[in-house]
Amino acid sequence: MKQSIGAQPLLYPTPVLVVCTFDGVGKPNAMTVAWGGICCSKPPCVSISLRKATYSYHHILERKAFTINIPGDKYLSHADYFGSVSGKNEDKFLTTGLTPVKSTLVDAPYIDEFPMILECHMIHSIEIGLHTQFIGEILDIKADDSCLDSEQVPLIERIRPVLYAPGVRAYYGIGNKLADAYSTKKEKFTEKVVEGKHLK
Amino acid sequence: MKQSIGAQPLLYPTPVLVVCTFDGVGKPNAMTVAWGGICCSKPPCVSISLRKATYSYHHILERKAFTINIPGDKYLSHADYFGSVSGKNEDKFLTTGLTPVKSTLVDAPYIDEFPMILECHMIHSIEIGLHTQFIGEILDIKADDSCLDSEQVPLIERIRPVLYAPGVRAYYGIGNKLADAYSTKKEKFTEKVVEGKHLK
Repeated sequence: MKQSIGAQPLLYPTPVLVVCTFDGVGKPNAMTVAWGGICCSKPPCVSISLRKATYSYHHILERKAFTINIPGDKYLSHADYFGSVSGKNEDKFLTTGLTPVKSTLVDAPYIDEFPMILECHMIHSIEIGLHTQFIGEILDIKADDSCLDSEQVPLIERIRPVLYAPGVRAYYGIGNKLADAYSTKKEKFTEKVVEGKHLK
Repeated sequence: MKQSIGAQPLLYPTPVLVVCTFDGVGKPNAMTVAWGGICCSKPPCVSISLRKATYSYHHILERKAFTINIPGDKYLSHADYFGSVSGKNEDKFLTTGLTPVKSTLVDAPYIDEFPMILECHMIHSIEIGLHTQFIGEILDIKADDSCLDSEQVPLIERIRPVLYAPGVRAYYGIGNKLADAYSTKKEKFTEKVVEGKHLK
């Protein structure tokens, strides 16, 4: 039996993405967002949503650039801290000791220690409400050698990304591989119906 | 050491979301997307990206409505099938035996068997490239009783959502809870530096 629980921003899973920018004087900053995802395959684009009140908001608009840094569970506490305080008040790279690297492709820094990063040129901004969505074209992805297979495909088991569960406001790890995509044939269901095991 | 692996649509994790619509003659259809996520808290909104070539694309534009259905791992093969074939050629509800329920809030159906669904009114469409992004305002969420705690908050352990890993094109489950969000204090890192255990 389904219960109506009202209009809320809930979805499972949401990613844990650390967004890095340079501020007005070129100081690197990092903030964490869970409102985001891939939004186009060609050109490859990613979207993130930020409140106007955040320190990063104006820097993305001004520099038309940001990086997405995927923490891996080893750096979950860093990501959590980045999402808990504002760069207006604290130098988050100084506090954590993480290493900002200036991208050669976009006017933004990335985090050297994180296993995978996306360098993005902002191509759209959409005012939705409390949040503004920025769409960034992914100009390059850089990943640690140790996270790539022999064909340079990133392996999720080695990146060990984390996910965020809104509602209960908690982080979770990645579980086991369940299946290869695009592997289910129509016959799977037809057989069930024929056998009288129709799902409902 | 970081390797440049080029401009690609890769991010971890991405969600597995089944998008339901009515077609031109009111037949319910379901397709699966991994390009999407929450994009605003107030009003609560979710974004999904579809190629123009999909059967659902025009129905979302025409009816300004869609639902997002979170499969849970029990229905992973259904979600995979929904993402593998087009509603132009097959009646996917008939094939799978799943039950379409007409939303009373938006002009779209949802899947009765799935543990959690979002009813969305399309408020923006953004042409990005191969994909068009639709932003839907979430008018209501409905979840199975059995997935809610005593305060009607959905529990991810009971929903058992799945995630998609692009690149290797595989589905994964949800792992263990790692931490509560917003729990990391600045002092955690200060102590490390003082103790000479600076991260890099």
